[in-house]
Amino acid sequence: MNTIFFNAHHSPIGSFSTLTLGYRGASGGMAIGLSQPADKSFYLGMQNSDESYTAFPFFETGEDERLRYDAEHFEADHSEGIRTYKEINRTFRLCTDTWIAGNMEAVIYSQVESIGDPAVTPREEMKKVLVPGVLMELTVDNTGCDKSRRAFLGYEGVDSYFSLTGVTEEHHRLTGIAQGGRIGIYTDDDSVLPGAGFSAEQILSETDYDNLVNAGGNTALLLMEVLPNTKKTYRFALCFYHEGRATTGMDTKYYYTTLFEDITEVAAYSLRHFDEYKARCLNSNVLQGGSLSPDQSFMLAHAIRSYYGSTQFLIAGDEPVWVVNEGEYRMMNTLDLTADHLFYELRLNPWTVKNTLQWYLDRYSYTDTVRFPGEEQEYPGGLTFAHDMGVANVFAAGGHSSYEKAGLTGCFSYMSHEQLVNWLLCALAYGTHTGDTDWLMKHADTLEQCLFSMINRDHPEEGRRNGIMGLDTVRTKGGAEITTYDSLDISLGQARNNLYLAGKSWAAYVGLAEFFAALGKTELSDKAEKQALLCAKTICSAYHDEGYLPAVMENGNRSKIIPAIEGLVFPFVMGHRESVSEEGPYGFYIKTLKRHFLNVLKKGECLFENGGWKISSTSNNSWLSKIYLCQFVAREILGIHTCGTKEEADKIHAAWLLDSENAYWCFSDQMISGKAAASKYYPRGVTGILWTLEN
Amino acid sequence: MNTIFFNAHHSPIGSFSTLTLGYRGASGGMAIGLSQPADKSFYLGMQNSDESYTAFPFFETGEDERLRYDAEHFEADHSEGIRTYKEINRTFRLCTDTWIAGNMEAVIYSQVESIGDPAVTPREEMKKVLVPGVLMELTVDNTGCDKSRRAFLGYEGVDSYFSLTGVTEEHHRLTGIAQGGRIGIYTDDDSVLPGAGFSAEQILSETDYDNLVNAGGNTALLLMEVLPNTKKTYRFALCFYHEGRATTGMDTKYYYTTLFEDITEVAAYSLRHFDEYKARCLNSNVLQGGSLSPDQSFMLAHAIRSYYGSTQFLIAGDEPVWVVNEGEYRMMNTLDLTADHLFYELRLNPWTVKNTLQWYLDRYSYTDTVRFPGEEQEYPGGLTFAHDMGVANVFAAGGHSSYEKAGLTGCFSYMSHEQLVNWLLCALAYGTHTGDTDWLMKHADTLEQCLFSMINRDHPEEGRRNGIMGLDTVRTKGGAEITTYDSLDISLGQARNNLYLAGKSWAAYVGLAEFFAALGKTELSDKAEKQALLCAKTICSAYHDEGYLPAVMENGNRSKIIPAIEGLVFPFVMGHRESVSEEGPYGFYIKTLKRHFLNVLKKGECLFENGGWKISSTSNNSWLSKIYLCQFVAREILGIHTCGTKEEADKIHAAWLLDSENAYWCFSDQMISGKAAASKYYPRGVTGILWTLEN
Repeated sequence: MNTIFFNAHHSPIGSFSTLTLGYRGASGGMAIGLSQPADKSFYLGMQNSDESYTAFPFFETGEDERLRYDAEHFEADHSEGIRTYKEINRTFRLCTDTWIAGNMEAVIYSQVESIGDPAVTPREEMKKVLVPGVLMELTVDNTGCDKSRRAFLGYEGVDSYFSLTGVTEEHHRLTGIAQGGRIGIYTDDDSVLPGAGFSAEQILSETDYDNLVNAGGNTALLLMEVLPNTKKTYRFALCFYHEGRATTGMDTKYYYTTLFEDITEVAAYSLRHFDEYKARCLNSNVLQGGSLSPDQSFMLAHAIRSYYGSTQFLIAGDEPVWVVNEGEYRMMNTLDLTADHLFYELRLNPWTVKNTLQWYLDRYSYTDTVRFPGEEQEYPGGLTFAHDMGVANVFAAGGHSSYEKAGLTGCFSYMSHEQLVNWLLCALAYGTHTGDTDWLMKHADTLEQCLFSMINRDHPEEGRRNGIMGLDTVRTKGGAEITTYDSLDISLGQARNNLYLAGKSWAAYVGLAEFFAALGKTELSDKAEKQALLCAKTICSAYHDEGYLPAVMENGNRSKIIPAIEGLVFPFVMGHRESVSEEGPYGFYIKTLKRHFLNVLKKGECLFENGGWKISSTSNNSWLSKIYLCQFVAREILGIHTCGTKEEADKIHAAWLLDSENAYWCFSDQMISGKAAASKYYPRGVTGILWTLEN
Repeated sequence: MNTIFFNAHHSPIGSFSTLTLGYRGASGGMAIGLSQPADKSFYLGMQNSDESYTAFPFFETGEDERLRYDAEHFEADHSEGIRTYKEINRTFRLCTDTWIAGNMEAVIYSQVESIGDPAVTPREEMKKVLVPGVLMELTVDNTGCDKSRRAFLGYEGVDSYFSLTGVTEEHHRLTGIAQGGRIGIYTDDDSVLPGAGFSAEQILSETDYDNLVNAGGNTALLLMEVLPNTKKTYRFALCFYHEGRATTGMDTKYYYTTLFEDITEVAAYSLRHFDEYKARCLNSNVLQGGSLSPDQSFMLAHAIRSYYGSTQFLIAGDEPVWVVNEGEYRMMNTLDLTADHLFYELRLNPWTVKNTLQWYLDRYSYTDTVRFPGEEQEYPGGLTFAHDMGVANVFAAGGHSSYEKAGLTGCFSYMSHEQLVNWLLCALAYGTHTGDTDWLMKHADTLEQCLFSMINRDHPEEGRRNGIMGLDTVRTKGGAEITTYDSLDISLGQARNNLYLAGKSWAAYVGLAEFFAALGKTELSDKAEKQALLCAKTICSAYHDEGYLPAVMENGNRSKIIPAIEGLVFPFVMGHRESVSEEGPYGFYIKTLKRHFLNVLKKGECLFENGGWKISSTSNNSWLSKIYLCQFVAREILGIHTCGTKEEADKIHAAWLLDSENAYWCFSDQMISGKAAASKYYPRGVTGILWTLEN
């Protein structure tokens, strides 16, 4: 790794909260529900033998706030400054983040565990996984030193309403520093003393501890006096609690509020179960291990952490609502992301897929009519789904997303076809993968409606259908639908006749054909299969003399795109291995995709000069989550193992995340020539979980 | 007035919330519980005949947020910019703030009403006064224009958790824009359409209204289509609602949450009672009228608005808690401010004085011992009171303030004597002024304890007492107590032998003597009277040959201070007019103070060169709230009517508030050579209410 100073999430599962830490300066901090790092100071340090203090470099020294009280006389004592460690070691894994410097070692534990289906899981199990806290073990080595030395851990508050204060909690016998009962750090070690004030420097320079007890300010520290020639380990719980209304539009609260009364209960529980939590973390680290290379391990751990930083498990009345917020944009359960998160959730929490699909069906679906481009005539469309469920903790009105707008042909336009396909792929993958055929059966009518909705978007006349999207939803009001690749150029942005979307449409038709066949609904199965074949043939017939499939199959488009192969992942995950085999019924299609891929994965086309993947030959905007997915497809499904599909590329992709500016944003998805340009602080990189399925 | 562009609070009573508006730029906005203006944009404007838009200058145009979604392609259309009105007229009064420009007139109504004692006041009365909303009447004149034109009102959100969206509320038939159910603007005019987005420019340039309905962003506008040749008046409620926990340390909620279910109920109630609210506002404007000069009227209105911006009416279990937050510092019910707010509260809400005194007695009092400076020997002290009840919505532990620290001799040291005197003065003034002698009687023992506590702080030996403070509380741990003038130099900062504090001590002794006399407790009355006489004599004996009383009556101090006369206001308010008369038992003292005052109120001493009051000859830090109070004492009690005590000074003081930088901070108290240096966004200026008592 080029740098160890990258921000990473340390997030309790489903709490949309985070300790973001790792980038230098006041660049991280503890926060709930934000779209970016809190940009606050986090303090972890210790006294030197000369009474001065040194800390990890996660803070900035601002103007002394005492000046505001005594403007005429106050002069800051600059000798109070805290130095920073020069030699620092970090070991970053999925569930542990270990920092070593000077005489300190801090391990931050954040668990990665499956959440049981809330309908059937005992409360105690739910508490274990959903407790909104992460843990820290801090070892201070004062051996070889003849006097006691002070260590400290604390933070600058992000809340503009409540001040940050020391807390002594009688009932659970806890000591802590907390802000408004929302964010706090607690310990059950009563030798640790809390202190609050205007700044860490002021707190540390205070010689009379009594002066810190009742102070309120925007910074607080937990102070530890480590005895001479002693090595001691302290344990802390870093806790979050958002009481009351978590969202508007639809009123919900955090699911954990049904399990824990308040933040001190969270802290007490966390500390009481420290050993088990720690053991689970050490155990789960293996998820990133196995056959993965160090670069893959790093990227996957980083991506999963960013995923959890965006997860928000809510309850609306009695109904659980699983939400993944869209990173810096905070759109809720963006359906094109759900289709990428699918692989991770099927591994960890399959019931969340069902939960999201059901909410889409019940509240965020709609039925439209469709039009040919440039024409006014409306034709039947059908059932489809909104782009998202709302934004920034506000649920959108039923049937509408917060994102989609009419009259556009680019970013912010409708994604009706893309989301129809995404819902279908998730539903079919969920049913086949989990064996929850009951659920799928129950929605057989819905799947039938979806099939006809897809067909209607192909062509109103049966004889003129080609298996791919030809009409836009009337909701665009004469604009054009787009795909999830909303910020790319036309090669991936336009939905109609788009190669990427055609590939996913083919996968949906394949899945539908298999589903209806298994159900004995032969007519429907045949219909779907016919569309799948039409689709595959249309794609293959577009194959260009120069050896590639054009990204948009019209108007002589010459863009080359990697995500041509993206759709293959879905039949694979559904278990329809025949469909993705060169020897199977779609062998001609698979072989064409393989040829396309081998031809475009080269420098000047779909590789940057340094070997990083460029998802479109005509755009510098490359998306890591999609690269990860297509790497899996290329290697595991198409069996392509060139140097371009392996370590060489991973090294570049990891370096993108660790770039000196990008590293601030935890995991970011959209990289324009390697610079995080959009989709920062983003959950989507969990597509990398597919790597762990590779042989 | 030099400028009309000064920020002012528009705050519902007791809700610690505000629309801060008036300073140019994104410098105000709607917020709950902040220590400063929210620095957000507020939009109020209208379409021009050429389709462009012009608005009042309360916004800034940031980077276009769409860039974050489409980094490679998005280009801002700078023609979308909103212009600002050049000719603007403002009429600023206590309860109305009227802005006129172009074809728009906006009146913001914020009521100033007495709050009934919650123990006995009907719920409907409480709702009327405590509804957490302010109102706006917006008149748009489109007469003489042949096409319809659009007007808009909206704001940029301050909440980092919830997005700001349009709201259509079925039950009450309201339309609005709101963020998280916490802050919103509502109307019952269903021709008004809400729209949300990334910026006002984007919302206004959107040609398809449907695209604004489901969007979420950080800016929202209410859009009005004013028909050709039409003049129309719209009505809006600007509402606030903080649900759940309002404070920690001691758990409370806002009192209004017991009266209104949520923000839409607040909005519906406000709009339903618009006429009555408006009538009350027009009626209450008279409070600043009468005999006041325009400068006085402006300062008093401005100060009262800032006062309400800091008020927070809470309920802890079933117990009401009236809190005045200390402006930018947000310390809660700082007792030295309570003694200045006293005059305002006795006029408007006397029960709040009792409420605050009772909470101090029950939770924020303590008993100490005292020491002579530089000595270790401890002597009995007695009952006294903490400086405050906590800070920034966190109540401090019982018996402690958030402010006071040990080991200091300046800012942040203890104020034990000052607060003892303040509690006593408030208690005695409350009892005598309201006639609530029951309450005072009930606390006769407490008052006795306070008397002995004061005496003990004079000198442990009866024969060596001089009526003024000689010993510091042991809590200072060898430091020295200070006064409310914590950031001034020694002339007003040191408590021991301080002329200002001696004057207030004298007032407390006078009040105690009268109280115990009325109670028939002659011995106690005599004791208090003896101390009052000793105090007055000690002060007079310090009179310097050069014609002034030194600020600190020791070590040859030569500072001259205006607040020598401050204490006189209390016996006056208690109705003990004899005590402050030149012909009364303390005539010698009154005459000395008058001579002192006449001699020091001159340029080079206690007047700045421009005629503004300088409360200490040795500091440039002058406090408006204290100036207002001492102006009243000088004119009404001492009968001094020179040009220095009148219009000439008021003109300067008003100019301080309107200074181009100071004007951002609403009312600020501490002015260093006319520049707001500390105590900004401050409630204390309501001492100006005393002016309305002048004949």
